[in-house]
Formats: sequence, C-alpha cells, structure tokens
Amino acid sequence: MKWLLLAGSMRKESVNKKLMKIVENRVGALGVQAESVAFESIEMPLYNGDLEEAKGVPEGIQTFAKKLAAADAWVISSPEYNFSVPGTLKNLIDWLSRVKPVPFKGKKILLLSASPSLVGGNRGLLALRVPLEACGGFVYPTMFSLSSAYEAFTENNSFVDPKNEKRLEAFLKEFSSC
Amino acid sequence: MKWLLLAGSMRKESVNKKLMKIVENRVGALGVQAESVAFESIEMPLYNGDLEEAKGVPEGIQTFAKKLAAADAWVISSPEYNFSVPGTLKNLIDWLSRVKPVPFKGKKILLLSASPSLVGGNRGLLALRVPLEACGGFVYPTMFSLSSAYEAFTENNSFVDPKNEKRLEAFLKEFSSC
Amino acid sequence: MKWLLLAGSMRKESVNKKLMKIVENRVGALGVQAESVAFESIEMPLYNGDLEEAKGVPEGIQTFAKKLAAADAWVISSPEYNFSVPGTLKNLIDWLSRVKPVPFKGKKILLLSASPSLVGGNRGLLALRVPLEACGGFVYPTMFSLSSAYEAFTENNSFVDPKNEKRLEAFLKEFSSC
Amino acid sequence: MKWLLLAGSMRKESVNKKLMKIVENRVGALGVQAESVAFESIEMPLYNGDLEEAKGVPEGIQTFAKKLAAADAWVISSPEYNFSVPGTLKNLIDWLSRVKPVPFKGKKILLLSASPSLVGGNRGLLALRVPLEACGGFVYPTMFSLSSAYEAFTENNSFVDPKNEKRLEAFLKEFSSC
Repeated sequence: MKWLLLAGSMRKESVNKKLMKIVENRVGALGVQAESVAFESIEMPLYNGDLEEAKGVPEGIQTFAKKLAAADAWVISSPEYNFSVPGTLKNLIDWLSRVKPVPFKGKKILLLSASPSLVGGNRGLLALRVPLEACGGFVYPTMFSLSSAYEAFTENNSFVDPKNEKRLEAFLKEFSSC
Repeated sequence: MKWLLLAGSMRKESVNKKLMKIVENRVGALGVQAESVAFESIEMPLYNGDLEEAKGVPEGIQTFAKKLAAADAWVISSPEYNFSVPGTLKNLIDWLSRVKPVPFKGKKILLLSASPSLVGGNRGLLALRVPLEACGGFVYPTMFSLSSAYEAFTENNSFVDPKNEKRLEAFLKEFSSC
Repeated sequence: MKWLLLAGSMRKESVNKKLMKIVENRVGALGVQAESVAFESIEMPLYNGDLEEAKGVPEGIQTFAKKLAAADAWVISSPEYNFSVPGTLKNLIDWLSRVKPVPFKGKKILLLSASPSLVGGNRGLLALRVPLEACGGFVYPTMFSLSSAYEAFTENNSFVDPKNEKRLEAFLKEFSSC
Repeated sequence: MKWLLLAGSMRKESVNKKLMKIVENRVGALGVQAESVAFESIEMPLYNGDLEEAKGVPEGIQTFAKKLAAADAWVISSPEYNFSVPGTLKNLIDWLSRVKPVPFKGKKILLLSASPSLVGGNRGLLALRVPLEACGGFVYPTMFSLSSAYEAFTENNSFVDPKNEKRLEAFLKEFSSC
C-alpha cells in the first residue's frame, strides 16, 4: 500500500510538516510505503483559465498528479486560514481538477490538521472536504486535529504528549484497515 | 460613495468580468463611484509564511489593500470552482488578512456569481462568505447568481434577458441604500 | 445487501418520497433488498437533553436505529430548506447520535435530493454531509440532484425524462458496487 | 433599542442559557431593553408541509415571530450538535421562514455559543449563519465563543474568569454601536 503525503503549508518550519514527518515515520509499521511531497516544491502558478487554454495543465501539476494517481491514498495535513482552506491548497485542487481523470477521484483521502490555537484546524478541514468530495474523493470521516501545535513536538520528530502519539497511531491504523 | 469592484477570475473573457462590467456601468445612476480592478493585474505570489516573514506583505497586495481600505464597499463577482471558492481568490483573502488592520474589516461586501451552469455559483459564494466574515467583513445576505452565463450577455455589455437587467438593478439599489 | 431508505420530508406528496419510490423499485435488479421508512412514521420528539436524561432515547428513535444498524447502507433523499438541511432531519441525526454505538458510524450513506427549483438541493446536501460525517458515516462523494421536480415524475413511479432514469440507474449501480 | 434573546437549547441548566442570562443582565447598561424567550416554551411541532397546508403556521411560532419582528436585533446563543446547528433550532428557522414577511429578514443578528469542549461551538455557528443569511438576516461577522463552559460560570450569573466578562462586554458594546 502506498500513501502520498502532503502538508498544505509552504513554510519550512510548518507544524503541519512536523505532523506529517511523524506520520511518515509511523506508517511503515502498518505495511504502508509513504512518499512525502513538499508543497513549495510543486511548480504551481495561480490558476488561470487563459493560461490553461494556452499551455495546458502545467508540468509541475502533472508530475504531482501522476504521483497521486499511483498512490492508494492521499494524506493531507493542512493549516486553517481564516476559518477555511488555504488558498494555495485550494489552488492545487483547482489545477488537479483539470487533469482528466481527476487523480484523486475514487481515492481514499485522510485529513489532519495542526494548529497553534486551542481550537485546532477543524473548520478549515470541513471546508477542505467540500472540493475533495465534489471531485469524487473518498474523504475519511474522522479527522485528526492537533491543537497548541507550537508546544506539541519534540526536536526529534515525536510528540511531547504521549497521548498524541497513541491517538495518531490509532487513527492511522484505523484508516489503513478501512 | 465608492465601491471597489473585483471579478474573481483571471480570464480575459470571464463571464464574471462581463457581469462586473455591467455593474460598473449601472452604479453611476445610484450615485456610486466604481473602481474596477482586474484580478490578473494584482501582483500576487502564492501565500507562504516564510516569504511574508522575509519580505513582508508583497507590494501588489498592499496597493490593492489601500484601494480596498479607501472604498465604502467591496463588490466581488466570483466563479465557483469545485463547489467552493477559487483558490486564487482565497489566496488574495489570505494575503489581505495579513495586512493590519484587515482592509475589509467592518466593510460592506456584496457577492455576485456568474456561471455557465444551470445552477449558478451559489455554493461557491456560500464558501466565500466564510473567510470574509471571519475577518470581520459585513457580507450582504442576498447574493446575485447568474446561471447559463455563456448565453447571458450581449456584445455591448448588457443582458440578453431584460429580466436579468431588472433583477440586477433592484439588487444594486437595495445594497446601495442599506 | 440491505439498504434503508428514508426521504427527509414528512409530506405525503413529497417529491423526495417519489424519488425514493423509484429507487426502491430499481435496486432489486442490483441484488439489493430495500426497506423504506416514512419519516413521519418515526415517533420523534424535539431533542431535549433533559428529556433524554429523564427517559433515555425515545423508543421510536431506538426502533429506527436498530433498522439502520442492521442495514448495509443508508440512502437519504432530502429537500433543502433555507440553503441547509431540514431541521427535522437534523433532529433525527441529533437523536441518533445519542444512541451508542451511533447506528450509522462506519456505514455507507448515499444522498439524493429532489427540488422544485432549477438549482436542485445541492446546498442542502452539502450541509447534510457535515453531521453525518462528524458521526463517522461514509457519505458517498457523488450526490444525485433532481431539479424541477414538480414536473419530473409520471403517475406510475417513473421519470418523465428517460435521461433521469439512466442517470439514476448508473448512480445506484456505481454506489452498489463501491 | 430592543433585543430578543434566545438560547438554542431546551435544557433547564443549559450553558447557553447561563450565557444568555449574563447577556440579559449586561445590556441594560448599553441602553438596550432585552427580552428573553425560553426555547422550550415555544410551542413548536416538527415542520411538516402537510401540517402547514392544513392548519397554517402554528400559533406558537406566530407569537414568537411577532416578538422577533418587533425587536431591533435577535441574539442567539446556540450549542453545536455534531459539528452543525441543532435540529431543533433549524426547525424553528424553517417555521419562521414560512411567515411572510420573514420576521428576521433585514434584521441584525448576533451569535454566541457556549460549549463544554475546548473547541467552543464555532463550527455550529458557521452552519447556523447559512439559513439565517439565506433568509436575509444580517448576521454580525464576529461571534462569541465560550469554551469549557461547565467551569465558566459562578452561581450568581457571572463568569469565573474576569477576562470572559471583559470580552463579552466589549463584544456587546461593539454590536450595539454598529
């Protein structure tokens, strides 16, 4: 089983990247082969219908789309911007929706969110479900939300609080066996 | 009274631009001075927290933010992408939310949508309301939705169907007097 | 395979009931045994935490919950009220969420909507997904929307337009084999 | 200025009722006359189109609608059920939307939420905005969310944490002067 991992933030020190690093390290034990893509490494212009008409879907998007199409599941950890999905991540989905067939149509998708706030990024994930499901993705109902994320990680890619470790492991195991 | 007009599409021939052109031509009669900004003319990178930390909010965003702050209302006509807000438009909102004070906080906002489908872009506008209201914008409850937009416009900036003309005029008048 | 069918309207002549009647008649060919429940036949009070504490989950809800738990999938055809889910249907979900385990947790759910408007009931279904998924239901990404529903049905439980017949059959087949 | 206050819970000991009690006690200082309605005191059947056709909008709904129409603003404090609006509260909105003119059309509406969780009831309020705005209500952008509500109140109708007192006062003052 292959999972494609993407943190929906372009920051080097993003807490969502840190969360995904832990995911990446843990899923081997579940028989999963994980490939992680750094969001900022995808060459992605702003979506523009004229650009698409003139030059087609950009190569950077197509490369990512192929990786996604080859994976069994797409795992996204995304920040919440202004109670909603980051524009950048939605822009990626908008481009991917122009690739035919849509590379995540019929694919299992798992959502996580790390957030510095007490609230976690749950509202953002609710907004993120909509376009993913509109394109035919099977977004797993349960979502993993990590609050107070600035204080959540140790320096060597684990959680300060062992409860989060257990919670994440149970979450990943549940998804991998669904 | 000054309104800033933005169509949330970068296409030259966008139906949302055509709709906004009609808005621009009609509001003078309501005593409104309209300024229209072409979305693709705003110099806007993808939002990246590292970029913001290194160089601050980009100049193109700041210029737009100033225009917005100087206006009495913000009028947006936006397409719907995948049942939600275009990533590009959300990216603009994400950048604007980093300008302090947020230039549309406390400001009246009017939403319209033109769509080639029978359904109109209403689901997209519902998603668009969320980040605008999260930042303190007063989004007008009623929204204008134009369906079958490819067949809706004449060549000289009016509607094929006079009912749409009346509907739009009533809508703009209602908003201008609220 | 057993499906539980519920139209989210209490009207006798509800277009959602008519749509469900067609679903009921068609799924036998897919090897599915369908059971239909009339919404108004469920004895359901308004949700009230005090009532629940005093008397537990009402018997009418428990009876429905058992049927639901025994089914392989839950098929709901729901109207849209005020751009959202009918309060009555949400009230049923609120009660069901108090039964442990939640009878639709981990269960496949299919959503349809019939609406007299041109727009269909898609915004309502988007709102309906949220609590169903929050409780762990696997809501199928694709949703069936029937617009102009007052003119859509013949007197003997079929569609006026044969395209709707084909569209529904393909939709049900796709879901039954997923 | 008159405000109509409603807590969207039928529990006697509802934390949303406690929050509204504080609101009621504080707004006099802002020159506001508050009237509070207990949700469970409204005689409200489940919405059913056949019932409406046979007997019209129920008297209990009409009485509430008149109070609402006579108020300058509607203040709602609502729990969140399953990431969304309580079915009971949505059922009230569905009935009110059948009164013509809709009693909260064009009216200012303020939303609050008290929740025992750490997260507050923000997702529920986002879902609540949709039908209120669909019917033409002017829902104030900023919303007041009180988390950990079981530990938030003293026995004599104030907050344990004085920060909440200040936060609420500023919130009410801001709304009363908008």
